[in-house]
Parts: sequence; structure tokens; C-alpha cells
Amino acid sequence: MPTHGTRPDHGFDVHPWELRWRGFDIDTIGRTEALFALSNGHIGLRGTFEEGEPVDVPGTYLNGFYELRDLPYAESGYGYPESGQTVVNVTDGKILRLLVEDEPMDLRYGSTVQHERVLDFRTGTLKRETLWTSPTGRTVRIRSERLVSFTKRTVAAIRYEVEPIGEDMKLVLQSDLLANEPIGGPGGKSAADDPRLAAALDNPLVADLADCEDYSAVLVHHTKRSGLSVAAAMDHEIELPSSGDTSVRADGDLARLTVAATVPQGSKIVVTKFLGYGWSARRSVPALRAQVDAAIAMGRETGWEALKAEQIAYLDDFWADADIEIDGDSEMQQAIRFSLFHVLQAGARGQSRAIPAKGLTGPGYDGHTFWDTETFILPMLTYTVPAAAGEELRWRHGTMYKAKARAAELGETGAMFPWRSINGDECSGYWPAGTAGVHVSADIANATARYIRATGDEAFEVECGVELLVEIARFFTGLGHHDANGRFRIDGITGPDEYTAIVNNNLFTNLAAQQALRDAVTSVGRHPSVARELDVTSAERALWTSCADDMVIPYDESLGVHQQSEAFTLLALWDFERSRGRYPLLLNYPYYDLYRKQVVKQADLVFAMYLFGDRFTPAQKLANFDYYYPITVRDSSLSACCEAVTAAEVGYLDLAYDLMSESVFTDLHDLHSNVSSGLHIAALAGAWTDCVAGFGGMRDFGGTITFAPRLPRQLTYMSFRMMIRESRIVVAVDRSSATYRLMSGPTIELAHHGERFVLGDAPVRKPISPPAAQHPPAAPPGCEPYRRSL
Amino acid sequence: MPTHGTRPDHGFDVHPWELRWRGFDIDTIGRTEALFALSNGHIGLRGTFEEGEPVDVPGTYLNGFYELRDLPYAESGYGYPESGQTVVNVTDGKILRLLVEDEPMDLRYGSTVQHERVLDFRTGTLKRETLWTSPTGRTVRIRSERLVSFTKRTVAAIRYEVEPIGEDMKLVLQSDLLANEPIGGPGGKSAADDPRLAAALDNPLVADLADCEDYSAVLVHHTKRSGLSVAAAMDHEIELPSSGDTSVRADGDLARLTVAATVPQGSKIVVTKFLGYGWSARRSVPALRAQVDAAIAMGRETGWEALKAEQIAYLDDFWADADIEIDGDSEMQQAIRFSLFHVLQAGARGQSRAIPAKGLTGPGYDGHTFWDTETFILPMLTYTVPAAAGEELRWRHGTMYKAKARAAELGETGAMFPWRSINGDECSGYWPAGTAGVHVSADIANATARYIRATGDEAFEVECGVELLVEIARFFTGLGHHDANGRFRIDGITGPDEYTAIVNNNLFTNLAAQQALRDAVTSVGRHPSVARELDVTSAERALWTSCADDMVIPYDESLGVHQQSEAFTLLALWDFERSRGRYPLLLNYPYYDLYRKQVVKQADLVFAMYLFGDRFTPAQKLANFDYYYPITVRDSSLSACCEAVTAAEVGYLDLAYDLMSESVFTDLHDLHSNVSSGLHIAALAGAWTDCVAGFGGMRDFGGTITFAPRLPRQLTYMSFRMMIRESRIVVAVDRSSATYRLMSGPTIELAHHGERFVLGDAPVRKPISPPAAQHPPAAPPGCEPYRRSL
Repeated sequence: MPTHGTRPDHGFDVHPWELRWRGFDIDTIGRTEALFALSNGHIGLRGTFEEGEPVDVPGTYLNGFYELRDLPYAESGYGYPESGQTVVNVTDGKILRLLVEDEPMDLRYGSTVQHERVLDFRTGTLKRETLWTSPTGRTVRIRSERLVSFTKRTVAAIRYEVEPIGEDMKLVLQSDLLANEPIGGPGGKSAADDPRLAAALDNPLVADLADCEDYSAVLVHHTKRSGLSVAAAMDHEIELPSSGDTSVRADGDLARLTVAATVPQGSKIVVTKFLGYGWSARRSVPALRAQVDAAIAMGRETGWEALKAEQIAYLDDFWADADIEIDGDSEMQQAIRFSLFHVLQAGARGQSRAIPAKGLTGPGYDGHTFWDTETFILPMLTYTVPAAAGEELRWRHGTMYKAKARAAELGETGAMFPWRSINGDECSGYWPAGTAGVHVSADIANATARYIRATGDEAFEVECGVELLVEIARFFTGLGHHDANGRFRIDGITGPDEYTAIVNNNLFTNLAAQQALRDAVTSVGRHPSVARELDVTSAERALWTSCADDMVIPYDESLGVHQQSEAFTLLALWDFERSRGRYPLLLNYPYYDLYRKQVVKQADLVFAMYLFGDRFTPAQKLANFDYYYPITVRDSSLSACCEAVTAAEVGYLDLAYDLMSESVFTDLHDLHSNVSSGLHIAALAGAWTDCVAGFGGMRDFGGTITFAPRLPRQLTYMSFRMMIRESRIVVAVDRSSATYRLMSGPTIELAHHGERFVLGDAPVRKPISPPAAQHPPAAPPGCEPYRRSL
Repeated sequence: MPTHGTRPDHGFDVHPWELRWRGFDIDTIGRTEALFALSNGHIGLRGTFEEGEPVDVPGTYLNGFYELRDLPYAESGYGYPESGQTVVNVTDGKILRLLVEDEPMDLRYGSTVQHERVLDFRTGTLKRETLWTSPTGRTVRIRSERLVSFTKRTVAAIRYEVEPIGEDMKLVLQSDLLANEPIGGPGGKSAADDPRLAAALDNPLVADLADCEDYSAVLVHHTKRSGLSVAAAMDHEIELPSSGDTSVRADGDLARLTVAATVPQGSKIVVTKFLGYGWSARRSVPALRAQVDAAIAMGRETGWEALKAEQIAYLDDFWADADIEIDGDSEMQQAIRFSLFHVLQAGARGQSRAIPAKGLTGPGYDGHTFWDTETFILPMLTYTVPAAAGEELRWRHGTMYKAKARAAELGETGAMFPWRSINGDECSGYWPAGTAGVHVSADIANATARYIRATGDEAFEVECGVELLVEIARFFTGLGHHDANGRFRIDGITGPDEYTAIVNNNLFTNLAAQQALRDAVTSVGRHPSVARELDVTSAERALWTSCADDMVIPYDESLGVHQQSEAFTLLALWDFERSRGRYPLLLNYPYYDLYRKQVVKQADLVFAMYLFGDRFTPAQKLANFDYYYPITVRDSSLSACCEAVTAAEVGYLDLAYDLMSESVFTDLHDLHSNVSSGLHIAALAGAWTDCVAGFGGMRDFGGTITFAPRLPRQLTYMSFRMMIRESRIVVAVDRSSATYRLMSGPTIELAHHGERFVLGDAPVRKPISPPAAQHPPAAPPGCEPYRRSL
């Protein structure tokens, strides 16, 4: 999103490996809850305070756990989804309430002498230190650190210590498991705005079991409509300077361990809380309880220090494979690592579950997964954490039966994947920007083929990949048709740009489908026995090829540019002067008006020129960018990172850098004023895309991986890493050259600015010519890209 | 709608001037309630039994009286209407309950010896005679007759008599005013299916006043949300053979006059009930009460016989101006008069209110008015009851401020009229088939210009017409744009065919807008002072002309046919074999699929060839009809009558007759299985259109009225009447000639099959050449037109 609003205070210390926020500001707690969220892709804990309040959105999420809600329509229609899914805040185990001599510790009262929190990208923990004086004048120091384990996906842990300052003090700690928390606060606003959604989320959990013993407790609940069960367990290690009282209770929605002790000054209470989570659509209450009992047993047996050591080791491996280093912009360096860290958190251990658009950092978009996952997030994961990319695609494959049923319901063949979903069922309540967004199926096919190319994961291809490609090829073969002139058309659908819908021959969709058809042909050729099981005939393969070959590519001869969709360049121009200050447009103008005009919400054709860049000449890329950039308003966070790549390719390096900043700082600088409802994981993944594909010029068009690095003036150096099958490489770029290194694995053929070479054990250094001076076109008035003062 | 289902039992005696139904069948009561509905355009009473039950939909309606309901959206959008309007069943005064020796008269019990009802097209009354034996063996004869007065629009009256047969009997009559009746029954199903609508209509009225005196009573209520007040009053004349007891009460939702008498055999009770109705958004309870008190005073003072005499005189005048006589198909003759009668009832006395799509005959379509009114209903009224047409257009003009506000809300200029509404506010909850149907504004302009041409109503033109034409021209000027090639395009809208939406350059819309622009130029030229008041400059007039001149008319050169919208002929063909037996398609296929294919819900381009026929050559008309008829499924009742006109013009006379039958018998034969929720007034108006414009070949392209009569083989004779300014003409057609007669008024220039002539006092007879044998194209499989066995 452009800088339509005022620039927020950023609030963070600049540091290459951590995000540190000093001081307490009630207005920013929603932002920090999302930015400081911890997740391993299975469990997500928002960065709330241990004391429970103040809080914006409490937020404990389990990937795939949802409640159903009605989707109402003023006028109903065949094939409209009747119910949607929405992510549920499950039993909150983050809470450790503190009473200081009967006074509840609450930053809204008393005085906060010192307060800071740190998200550490290398330890994968959220640390906090607070020096607080109660309204009655007693001062305590609180330190906490917590983690959601990357190595033990059902486990989270919190270490919490309290030290009285200047006097002995009676302290009481209440460690809770709390279900059905109120969900209010500004970040929960979307729910409050929609009474039906609010109703679905009001006390969504029904208690099935509550039990406790010694320092441990467990709660099991189920949802009212979706029928999913969730279990949460906690256990504790308690270090007291002297004796204290402990008691434990569990009943209904609350389990609580209470520790009361008189703590001399100079000593402290330390509580380590182990949390275990599990959910199931099928398992019984005793089985689920056993599962979380085992999780906390494993957590406690491992112990805090060992859990943390495993976390660090896991992240060491990640950074070794994925880190991007830059010189010249330390704030950007921090933002890039923040971005990579959060993309990892979103995708690391989803294990056959989706990666939601907001990860597990907030309730935004109902917790749904969109095309963001395969198109924006998976490219980074494919080349850095390929196992996570494979798991996500296995989830898609696991929902194949739903995609085939949806296709059949709508009269289509093959598999038609949902525009938005948690469990694989279509949840879109507005079909022109939902069901009509058929490119999501092509996006899944493209991601599947890319993953297979990049990893050579034969087992995946045999078990999932071929079938995904075949059924998606069948979908597009049936969706389009050959017209009387022998051209293959895909009519009446919606491309990435949601300000133009129900169009014919959207260029992005046609190119993505073309690629999907060709990749299906290739994949069945590699695995004829799988193809036979899927009843693929040679005639069908020939049909896929002809559909791909005959695909309509709309082009305006008189303007010399491609058309985003057929006739797009004939539409009326949007009056950008009229809409100045009225962004995002969809909140100020009707779709009826937007659809009729040449105004683009987000990169569509310009994105296609990156993903399918081998289908365009350099001159076409320049002409198209110059035509479409000035009419693209970037009302979606999915736009800037795509435009940055093409801007860099055509030589607009300064503009590319600004666009990359807009993507990477979307959440850190809260450019959309909605970070409290969750991070924009796709925009964060844009940090990787813009470095690697933008300034690194990396392309993967099905054969050799190619590079065309060139740095913007803001940077003096950049290095990035990639895994390509067995080969791990590092590319280091400075102003005049790029150096390619093979870290491990076999030699690999690459290309540098069009020149092929083989990378073996010896580094290869290649010169980079300086960019030609270029004058980029102007953005739409009032939509200038985000420009940071460096 | 084609004969997708089985052919229903028709049930009616064939008679040229009445509709008679014999016997009692509980399954048909919903149908007969609608078919026997009485209305004057202001008050509508469904044809329920006086005894109140059995009933399907009780139905007492006042034109313009509605309640608000929420319009919910699964995903909301800017400019979506938040609340809709729905017609309310107001206080029911039709009820006269009868107790026969303590046994309630109810046709579901006891035995119905004889029962018949007659809707008389010349008296404008609904008559009924029932001979019924109670479960305890007592027999009574009931005769009733009722009317909704055409001459006194706030008055209705019922004459009800009961005669004991074979023995003296104690009879009790309860004459009610009853508010908040239950609305259940099959015809109220749409409400029951939608819990929100049902909630809005559950006890919609709040009691404000109840009073009674002697034989009269009054109830005043208001709606909960729309804040409209309604008053209903009744008074009675009672004729008893001897003395009896009477009492009256009024409280809350019920007012009741009770008459109890012992009636000797051979004598009878006769009760004449006078009803008065009024409603207002502004007037006070006492004012409204006074209004209905005056209405019943007027009704009673006039008396039953005089009311009936006035009714007959009114209808004598109507038939003198509007009757259509045919020889050769007596069932069709009856159906035509039934149709003309109901169109009259819908529009006669609306007086600055809308004419709803279902008149005041049922709750279907929420009681809304669509483009049906100006495009289907007004042509008949314009040439037969021009005052009614003028009143309707004055209603549209009265909502101009809402249409201008709606245009401004959506970023348009001028006036943008609602797709569906009761009070002028947009009520469409699905914008691609609502707000995007911009042709409704052109339709209003076209009807305005037609009315002015046909009537020469200067006062209307000055007060309303010029402004309607100017503001609608402004709307289309702003809606479209000149492209780089200088063509004027109207993109991203929806034409009449609702199976193709959000298209560019819908031919119907472009031609309707072109006509609207030209008529605006003409009208401001006639009234320069009005134009000055509206700030019309010569530059603006020139702009209108250029927009009209440059209008895109999409044509497919390779197929040699016009395109319904740009690129339409490139879309995939619909698989009609697949959809056999799955009609209407919108209940079995998603819009997503329908929009992408060449499948047409209802005449669109084919309709345009009738309305704007001077823009097509005869060869184009034939080619276009042959292309579009085989892909038009007629899932709308608005289709057959339009296709019939063009079928007749291109020489497919048999097919035209079948299509006309499908339109005219839509309700009489319940072809859509939904007549219980109200008549399809536009389809009934098709009877007039098909006779006059179809087999009479009447066209009015802005200058001379022209005819091209030619009868189908089913008819040996047809005559019809028209009023053109001051001239009343009759056109009588037989197999070989047409005779034109001037009944009154000045001489008039006409044309017969292209030959101009002046019609004065002497009849003019012109020969008709026999039609060339033609072989029409086939309908889509399973969509053959309705063919009656004659």
C-alpha cells in the first residue's frame, strides 16, 4: 500500500538480529502482539503480556482449527458457500498473572520504570524485561522469555521470573489455561463490526474435560458447529527462594496453578511453564488428553535450557540456508531478517496444514489461506526450507477430493481449488472476487512444478505432484475452450487484480494456466505409470499441449502493450485526481465503478512478467511496466513486492528499492493500519523475492536457474543463499561483480546476465555492468511508493 | 418459460369475457388467489375466500406501502444497499366469517355441493357462488361479489349473502378488519425460506388506534422500521329477514362486526361491506383515520349498485380503447382479455406510485418494480390508458432526487434509477444483476419519449419529461467514454440477459442509451427554457449527439451476426444436452458458469431488434434471430413475448404464436409454478405487445406509426385499438387484408407494410400478401416453446 496515510512512529531499535521495542505505549499493543507473535506453523502465540492484560487480541491459534459461521446473502445463488470458517482463539496458556502485595501487575496502572521486549531471530524467543512500581509504591523486576518450539511442534514454554526490588514482598503467581477469552479490542474490530462473526466467536468452545494434579492441568474443549476438539495442557517447574504455597484447580474454561510466596529482596521466583497443544476432528477426549499430556511430559523432560538450545540450533540451520545479508541500509537488514523469520514461523511445521495469509499471528482474513501461499510464500520456502514447501503442497493434495467435488458442483472437470479456506472448502462469500479467481488452481500447479524442479522430490511427485498437475490441467482444459479461430480462451474469470473482475483472457491467468498445462505434460511424461493410474491418455496430453499452444495472449497493437485482460486498454481511464486521499479505493468506490475502468488494485500483468518472464521481450516488459505502473494503486499488500521485481529488471532500481521497502515495512511500519489483526506473510516473503529475484535477478523458467544481479544505489553489498536440489549456493553481489559459491552438493549450471556457467567448488566471479540511467514513470497521484529516509 | 415441466390442469371454462373456475381444490387456492385478485393499482385484494380460510397467502396490499428489511452480505462492499423494502400484507378487510349453527363455514370440512368463482372482465368484479353442507348436515348457499373501485381508488366493497337451504338456521356473520395475519402457505414460501425476510414480515404492524361505532370500525397501524402508517375502515349495510343481534368491537389488531340471526329457509342475510384504505409516511393518526372515514362514507353514500355501475362504465371505456378481438382460438381470446384486464388493474390508479412487477396480486419479488414497468407494461398503457402511463412516469420523476443521489454515491453524473425498488431507493442485493443493469435508466427515458410522442402531453413534458431525459442523458454520457478510436463505449454493465453480466457494450443497452441521448436532444430543442433551467448548454447537446453517433454496436463479421455484447460470440457454447431438465438454469448452475458461456436467459439482442428495429436490416434481423433463438432458454417470463414479436417480423408466424402463448398463459397455466406469489404483469402485457407489435407489426420509431400486419394460421381475424395523440384507431386484420378505421380525433398518417397513407373518416383497406414459408431454427433442446393443443 502506498503512503496514503501518515507515517507511523516505528518504535524499534535498529539491530541486525533482533527486534527490540522499548517503553510501554497502550496504543501500540495490538501492533506488538502481532509483530512479537511466536509460531512454529502449528501453534501460534500472539505477543501478549504474560499478565493477561492490557491486551488487544489475546490470540492462541492452532493451525487448521476453526469454527463455522453462516455466510448470508441478500440474494442467494447456486453454488454459493453456505458456511465459512473462521480461526478460533483456543485455550490461552500464555497467561501468568502476578499479584504484588494484592496489587495486580498491570502496566496501565502504577508506573513503568523500564520496559522492553526483544524478538530474537537467532534464538527464536521473545524476551521481556520490565521494572514496574505498583500504585502503592512497590517495585518489581519481571523477566520472561518464551518460545514455540520448532523442534517439538506441540510444545511451547515460558520462563517467567519476578524479583522484588528494595524490600521483601508477598507475591502471588497465577498460571492459567483459559478458554473462551473475550476477543474485543481494536484488532478484534472486524469481528465486532460483523454481528454474525461476533456471534460465531462468542464463547466458541464447549468444555469437555478439566483435570489437574500437582503442578499440571489439562482442559479439553470442542467447538459448537465445526465439531473440532482441542486439548491444552500445562505443567510447571517452580523455583522459590524459600517455601511457598501452591495449589492447582481445573474446571470448565479455567485451569490455574497458584503460587504464593514471600520473596526477600535480592532473590526471586522463577516459574517455567510448559504448554502442550493438540486438536483433532476425530480423536476422543481421552485420546486427545493423552496426546497433550505426552507433549508436556516431553517438554518438561527436555527442559527449558535444552528446548532453547534446540531452538537455536534449528535457527542456525535456517539462517545458514536462508540468510540475506546487505550493506548500506541497516534498518532494511533488520526488516529482511524479521521478514524471513516470520515466513519461517508461518510455514516451518505446518505439516500437512495450510499456511494462512496471516500465519498464526492474528484473526485477520478469518485465518484463511489464499493464493498468497503458493505464489508468494512457497517460492522462498522452496529454495530455503523445501521440506516446509513440500508439506504445504501435501496439504493441498490432501484437499484434492474437495477441489474435485467443488469442480463438479460448478460443472467443471478436474480439481478447482478454493479461493479462501482453512480446511479446503470454498469460503468465499463474493464469487466475482472468489470462485472466479481460478488462477489459484494454476498457482498451485505452478508451485508444485517449481517445488519438483527445485527439489527433485520424487516421492512427492509420485504421491502428490502428478495428480495435482493432472487434475489442474483437466480443470483448465474444461474451463477454457477453442474458439472458431482455433484460439484457446479462458473467459469470465478474475485475475489477481481485484479491481477488474469477470473478464475474458486475463493475461496472468492464461499464462499461469499455460504453464500448468505444460508442466502436466512434462510430469506425466516422467511418470507414465502414475499417469495411467490417473487415466491420462495420449490424446489428453495432446489436448493439454494444444490448449497451451493456442492460449490467447491479449495484446493492444495500437498502444504496443499487452492487455491485462481482453479489451482492458479500451476501458475508461480512472480519474486519479478525484480519488486522491480516498484509498483503499474499495472502501470508497463501488466495484461497479472500479471494474469498468483502467485502475489496477495490485500487480497483475506486471507480476506475470516476473513469473512468466520468458514469454515477454525486454522491450515489452519496459512498455508494459510503463503503462501499468501509473495505473496501479497498490491497495493490496501483494502488489509492491511484485512490481519491485519487474522494476529492477527493466532498470528502475531506485523505484524497485522503494517498492521493496513498501512490502518489507508493511507490518513493521503498519502501513495498512491493520497489523494488529495479523502480519501480512506474503508481503514479508516479498523481502526474499525482492532481494533474490529483484536485485539478484534470479529466475527459474524450468531449466537452468539464472541470475542477473544489480544493486540499487542504496546498497553496497548483498548476499543470499539458495538450495537447488542437492546444491547449496551463496550469491554475493557488490557494485561491480557477483560471486557465486557452492557451499555443498554437486556442481550446478547457472547463468549470470545471460551467460551460462558451471559452479563447482571454486567460486565464480562475474562482472556487473552499471545500470543505464532510467527515468521511471510516475505512480498514480497520491500513490507514490513508500520512501524511507535513510 | 418453456414447457420444462408438465402441463398443469388449466381449470377454467373458456369464455370471451370472464374467467370461471368450478369446484374446490385445496391445491389450487394459491393460484386462484392471484388469478382472481382485484386491484385498481392503489388497493390490491387477493382472491381469498371471504371466510378467511383455507388460504394460501391472505394478501391485502396498498401500492407503495412497505417494511424495511436488512440486506446482509457475506462480504460487504461499498455502495451495497443496506436495507431492502418488502411489500406488507396490510389490515385484511376481505374477511366475512360465517358460522352455520356453531359450525364455521370452511370448505376443507363438510361437503362442497357446488362452488364456482367468476372474474368478470366487463364488471370488474369477482363473483362467487357456493352450496355447502356442514359436517352436521346443514346446507347453505353463499353468494358474494366484490370489487376494488376503479372510480374511487380508496374504496373496495363486498356484497355477501347467505341463504339457508331446507330448514331455518341460526347464522352468525363476523366481518373483520384483521392486522398481522399469519403469512404462511406455499405462496409465502419465499418468506419462510429466508429467516430474515420472515422476521421482517412477522407481525409487521404496530397498533395505533382502534375505534368502532354502530356498523363501522377503523384500525390504524404503523410499521416498525419504515415508519409508514396505514388506516383501514369498514362500514356495513345489513339486510336481515327478521330481527337479529349486531355488535361491534375494535381493539389492537382486530375490529369485528358480528351479526347473529335466525334465518328462515327461503330468505337470506345480505351484508354489504364497504372498505376504505389509506396510508401515509407523514400524516398523523387522526388525519389518516379521517381519510378512511371519508372513504367509507363516500362508498356507503354511493352504494353497492352505483359503485358497480361506475365500475362497468369505467371498463366499457377501457375496452372501447383497448380491446383486442381474435377469431380462431377462443382460449387465447379469453387469455388476452384476462391479460389486458390485469394490466389495467395493475396500472389504472397507481397515481404517482410505481407499478410493481406482480401488480398488487402477491408478495413475489418483494413487491418491487423493475424495468418491466417502462419496457413491458407502459407500451400498452401508453396507447390504451395514457393517463396511467403518465402517472407512472410522474412517479419516476418524483424519485429523481433519489436517482441523482444514487448516481452521486456511485460516482456517476445525472440520474441513475434503481434496478428494483418500491420507493425509489435501490434494493438490489446482488449488484451484477442489479446496479449494473443500467439499461433501466435508458428504459425510463425511452418510455418517457414514447409517452410524449404518443400523447403530446405538453404539461408532462415540461414538468417531468425534459428533466427525466436530460438527467438520464447525463448519466449515460458520464457512464460511457470515447475510446482512442473515437467510439463511445459503455463497459462493465449488465444487459437484459441476466445469464451474462458485467459485459462491455451490451447491444441492447447501447441502443437504448443511444435512443435516450437522441430523445434528450429533441426534447431540449422543443423546450429551450426548461433546458436553460436545467443548465443544458449547446456544448452538452452536442456531446449527447456525438455519444449517440459514436456508440459502439458490436458485430461479428465472421459469423455475420451482431454480438449481444462485445466478444459474446467468442464465448464457449453452452452444453444444452447436459442441462436438459435442469431449468431454470440459475437454480442448477452457478452464475460463474452461466456468465462464461453463450447461453441467454431472456431476449436481449432479439428484444433490441424490436424496440430499435430501425437500426437493423431485415437480413440482419433474420440472421440474428436464427443465431440467438437457439441459445435462449427463456428462464425469465420476460422473454417469450419479445421473441414472438421478432419471430413474427422475420416470418416465423407459427413460432411467434407459440411464443405468444407461452407469455399469455404464463399465469393462467402456471408455467413457472409460482403464480401463487403473484401474476407476471409484464408477461401479461405481452398479450398486447404480441398482438399489436407482433401480428399487427406496429412500430413507433419516432415519426409515423407503422404497421405490418400478418396473421398466423391459428387466427382468421384480429382487431386491436390504439390511441395516438387525439386519434383513436381500430385496426382489423384478416388473412388477406387489414382495415384501418379512425374512431375519433383528427386524421393521422400511418403506414402499412412500408406504404404510407393518411387515415381520415373513411376506413382504409390494404391487402396483405401471404407470408413466405419459413423454417424457424430449433429451440435449445428441452426448451421448446409452449404449444397448446387447439
